[in-house]
Amino acid sequence: MNEIYIGILGLGTVGSGVVQILTSNAEDITNRTNSHIHVKKVLVRNLQTPRSVSGDFTLTDQPDDILQDPDIDIIIEVMGGIEPARTYILEALRHGKNVVTANKDLLALHGHELLDAAKAAGKDLYFEASVAGGIPIIAALKQSLAANKISTVIGIINGTTNYILTAMTEQGRNYEEVLKEAQSLGYAEADPTSDVEGLDAARKLAILSSIAFNSRVTINDVYVDGISRITAEDIAYAKELDSCIKLLAIAKHQDDGLEIRVHPAILPKSHPLASVSGVFNAVYIVGDAVGETMFFGRGAGSLPTGSAVVSDIMQVVRNMETQSTSAINCTCYYDLPLKKSDDFHTSFYIRMRVKDEPRVLATLALLFAEANVSFATIIQKQKANQEAELVLVTHPIYESQLREALDSVKAYSKVLSIHNVIRFEAN
Amino acid sequence: MNEIYIGILGLGTVGSGVVQILTSNAEDITNRTNSHIHVKKVLVRNLQTPRSVSGDFTLTDQPDDILQDPDIDIIIEVMGGIEPARTYILEALRHGKNVVTANKDLLALHGHELLDAAKAAGKDLYFEASVAGGIPIIAALKQSLAANKISTVIGIINGTTNYILTAMTEQGRNYEEVLKEAQSLGYAEADPTSDVEGLDAARKLAILSSIAFNSRVTINDVYVDGISRITAEDIAYAKELDSCIKLLAIAKHQDDGLEIRVHPAILPKSHPLASVSGVFNAVYIVGDAVGETMFFGRGAGSLPTGSAVVSDIMQVVRNMETQSTSAINCTCYYDLPLKKSDDFHTSFYIRMRVKDEPRVLATLALLFAEANVSFATIIQKQKANQEAELVLVTHPIYESQLREALDSVKAYSKVLSIHNVIRFEAN
Repeated sequence: MNEIYIGILGLGTVGSGVVQILTSNAEDITNRTNSHIHVKKVLVRNLQTPRSVSGDFTLTDQPDDILQDPDIDIIIEVMGGIEPARTYILEALRHGKNVVTANKDLLALHGHELLDAAKAAGKDLYFEASVAGGIPIIAALKQSLAANKISTVIGIINGTTNYILTAMTEQGRNYEEVLKEAQSLGYAEADPTSDVEGLDAARKLAILSSIAFNSRVTINDVYVDGISRITAEDIAYAKELDSCIKLLAIAKHQDDGLEIRVHPAILPKSHPLASVSGVFNAVYIVGDAVGETMFFGRGAGSLPTGSAVVSDIMQVVRNMETQSTSAINCTCYYDLPLKKSDDFHTSFYIRMRVKDEPRVLATLALLFAEANVSFATIIQKQKANQEAELVLVTHPIYESQLREALDSVKAYSKVLSIHNVIRFEAN
Repeated sequence: MNEIYIGILGLGTVGSGVVQILTSNAEDITNRTNSHIHVKKVLVRNLQTPRSVSGDFTLTDQPDDILQDPDIDIIIEVMGGIEPARTYILEALRHGKNVVTANKDLLALHGHELLDAAKAAGKDLYFEASVAGGIPIIAALKQSLAANKISTVIGIINGTTNYILTAMTEQGRNYEEVLKEAQSLGYAEADPTSDVEGLDAARKLAILSSIAFNSRVTINDVYVDGISRITAEDIAYAKELDSCIKLLAIAKHQDDGLEIRVHPAILPKSHPLASVSGVFNAVYIVGDAVGETMFFGRGAGSLPTGSAVVSDIMQVVRNMETQSTSAINCTCYYDLPLKKSDDFHTSFYIRMRVKDEPRVLATLALLFAEANVSFATIIQKQKANQEAELVLVTHPIYESQLREALDSVKAYSKVLSIHNVIRFEAN
């Protein structure tokens, strides 16, 4: 039986979950790894703060107590943020320790540096928990689906926005109202920007894309658009189109490069992701051999995220036992070009208010046709004051065509306002 | 760069898919494993049969040509059936070769013997493809969810029956008609017994249960019931109950033991498995830390199954490189008791035809009450000839209570026939 000592950096939501799982499932974990795993030390900011978990470990506010402890084999970084997490992980690797982290911010920006450092040290750097909480999506892409050329990854990987959009869909309520409720329930933060503007999903998508396509993608490469402009009206129209609105994190490997984007999208109800509701996450993957697959589960929370961290720890322990750490680190063998948003080719939903007069629709159709834009679906509804609401769904076009068409449409005097433009994601 | 030589036993549907993937994705596979993987020899029954795939390999009809070839590092067993597959795998391990197999029949019966032989030989025995085709469910249970105590595994793991039940549901057609169509489309075999009577799903469930609960379960331990008695009427009533009928493979770890059963079940539409249609497979897993998860994809076919086999080959190659084969073989550390069907506690759907006369329902309710059976839902419909159809949904009861109640109900002169009894699977 091996005795393995770990040090944990951070005892917040995830750190507490890790301690709890290691304690409550100790017998199974020992059987499955042939090792006793001991939490030796935990780094906290304030030694006086009361803690929800306890155990046979020492609290310390000195990082070097852990990073330089020769008994500690594995460092668990669950403090989050870029610094000092980055420095601590690099130092841990330099001191010959394996690292398990849940830090998406850090990996989406400095993943390459960290993986290179792990390789140089001959140590493991595992980060399953950084994307989609308990859903084992990193392992699936790196190992279980490794035989495939992956063409598409589409994720619902932000629970806050999925909770908000689900509540808006099921209850017909407006964005601001549901956001406030989500904040009061703890599903959204006081400053919700990172979630609702798509940045959190973009970080996770950068990590997923890098692994799926074996080519480096960072947060700065991701086209990002958030959900704050989605209204109850848009959701009602999506329903009429037998679809729903989801914040999708989309990564596609196409002939002309990688298309990496996060934005609200209208998704047909027949798509496997359409039924993923509330705070659940899911990642849909298409590989050339396996075809369509989907992985579903809880994307956040103390125990689901802890499940991914502890499963990673167990794999590192197995690797230590067989002296095979560092077997899979950086997998970016290629350097694929990244497409600009001008080159994204998608359908668009356009909702606008126009004068309800003869020949308005004909004129609009001509203006769109000049930009080579034609329509798959048109919904027109009469409104008060001789106005009409128009919902147009285009055939797939380039963003440049959309801009050109909207410029001339906006200049047309019978167009009162363009309420919203949302991309379609077809099956 | 390592040069790895493999031998394949069988060049049918799966074997051809394996060769095709190794050929078409050779560059990615080499990058991801740091190895060239060469198919050296393939065992076939008849050397003269024309083949859909070709390559730089030798066909042979002599198993020892492959099993005793000192150059061959990994044997891929994709011939199926118990013998001679079992003998070949044992011989391959004795000759110091790693083994990847897709053989559910063999593993569900002799998994323990084979895993012990792999351990004794210090070699890998991988079998991801044996359950749910391309869906990486074995790796998820063995590694990615290893931190969890798994309480529940529910699979839709037989594509033939899911195709038949989906077509019956969507088109309101009858079992026999849809089965014939499935046979003509190649989704069902000429002798469909193994699929429609639940045996195929039971084999896969035995494998999944053994891994999920770390306790040996063989095909002989699984309670099995097929779909051939499900009618269009039952499916229509399930819809009225806001549910659907699926062939479920259910494994639960309960206080009094393991409950392992395959049978048609009425499943609420709100369950994540309810939207798994056609030939798709999915496995729903509940772990104490991760909560609910689901893995979805194609459960059969040349390339999806080949995806799992080749991904396994790649993992074995990585293990060979780090000299860490045999790290995870048999995981049955426990010997948990198996529950008998008498001790299954579920709700039942009972559809019967009765005389449409006063006091019949009251009498029936009394007869059920004598066995301590009460109802969650009752649907009654008038039929011709002063008859009525009754659908009763019980609260959870033991099978012994059901039998006791049905014995007295059958003896009641106003009961004309009991059409069907189907278990409920609640959320």
